[in-house]
Amino acid sequence: MRYKVTVAYDGSMYAGWQTQHRNDSVQETIEVVLSRIFNEPIIIVGSGRTDRGVHAKAQVFHFDADRAIGCDKLKYALNTQMDRSIIIRFVEIVDDKFHARFSVLRKQYQYYVSNDVLNPFIRNYMHVEKNQLDIQAMKEVCTKFIGTYDFTSFTSAKIHEHKSRVKTIFAFNVIQNESSYVFTIEGNGFLRYMVRMIIQTVLMVGLGRLSVEDVAAMLIAKDKHACRYKAPACGLYLTKVSYKEE
Amino acid sequence: MRYKVTVAYDGSMYAGWQTQHRNDSVQETIEVVLSRIFNEPIIIVGSGRTDRGVHAKAQVFHFDADRAIGCDKLKYALNTQMDRSIIIRFVEIVDDKFHARFSVLRKQYQYYVSNDVLNPFIRNYMHVEKNQLDIQAMKEVCTKFIGTYDFTSFTSAKIHEHKSRVKTIFAFNVIQNESSYVFTIEGNGFLRYMVRMIIQTVLMVGLGRLSVEDVAAMLIAKDKHACRYKAPACGLYLTKVSYKEE
Repeated sequence: MRYKVTVAYDGSMYAGWQTQHRNDSVQETIEVVLSRIFNEPIIIVGSGRTDRGVHAKAQVFHFDADRAIGCDKLKYALNTQMDRSIIIRFVEIVDDKFHARFSVLRKQYQYYVSNDVLNPFIRNYMHVEKNQLDIQAMKEVCTKFIGTYDFTSFTSAKIHEHKSRVKTIFAFNVIQNESSYVFTIEGNGFLRYMVRMIIQTVLMVGLGRLSVEDVAAMLIAKDKHACRYKAPACGLYLTKVSYKEE
Repeated sequence: MRYKVTVAYDGSMYAGWQTQHRNDSVQETIEVVLSRIFNEPIIIVGSGRTDRGVHAKAQVFHFDADRAIGCDKLKYALNTQMDRSIIIRFVEIVDDKFHARFSVLRKQYQYYVSNDVLNPFIRNYMHVEKNQLDIQAMKEVCTKFIGTYDFTSFTSAKIHEHKSRVKTIFAFNVIQNESSYVFTIEGNGFLRYMVRMIIQTVLMVGLGRLSVEDVAAMLIAKDKHACRYKAPACGLYLTKVSYKEE
């Protein structure tokens, strides 16, 4: 029996989605509770990792279990056995061919930036930038990332010959609210730190410290030393994972 | 030289404004930094205490120091030496007759309630109530508290003959947003737990578990056993302290 689960979590409470040698990851926290509920060791497979401090409004994972438990009942059991920093939003029973990582078609992230430097309540949930940002310049540079590119310049991932750094960005824009900016980026996949490196590069344009041409040059350079910028984890949210069957 | 300071803080990070035997209070955190800046022991006097987990958008305190430091410079020094869970909003130099507690004319609190049970990001900042609330019934019962009453029924404060439990509520209302409710209450002072006990009583009316008449009877009972309700600390914010000279 394969279960597909959609989960939201406050990343400021965890060492990341998955960790190597510690037990304070979101994945392990969920696995402990699932193993107790099913009374067998449960391993879950996420759509991908999120870094320490990165949040999710809709991360997806799957797992297999011998027992069949009704979806609503399982959701309720999970939510009552975990504190409110992890909230199970949907539970579905899916075909065994479904794979939370390999079946991904598109992923969407959002990034929140605030100018509200006098607000102590957002520090784990938005990146605070005290300087004004040029929204038109940021909107323009966002469009430069749309398309299929080798994103070597925008990742810290080690270079493996067999692993492609070519990704497609379908959409990337930014909107301005009263004292905040919300970036939305959607692609067929993202390399390690890719979203945060792209966002900080766009913010540098918004601050007038990089030009649109500078960024276009960084993109075509395919040079892992081209971009030394990385936005803080706290502003980043995994907001949607789309699959083939949907 | 007397300084008046307005401060916002994330109460989920602290044991309260003031604690007896611990050093994890907001007051002590600020005193440590002020004492370092002024190079003398600084004791601060708040407008009143806030409980563990209660937030402030505009708590006020005063302190005296021998040295004169410019207000902007002092604000900057404080904000750079504390993490962003405490943010100094205003620093003023005031007359020695100003007293952060004894000069208070009015205090305003806000209380946030959310119906958004699937949101992991608000758990320290709003009280989550999964059931729908009757906004009209809550608006009606709020008006019952406006006026001058002996609030013995709505406090856990021990009874001292010399200490009055008569307080005046100037304004009390609730507005409904998309999936949240914001209560605003303003009075000349509040007893221990008074705001949280009043709010939970109003929520019981919103849930249909108490009638407006039940609440009116609790108010005139002046009985410390009349109200057994207390809303969680996480939804409460001290939002304004008004003084005579303003």
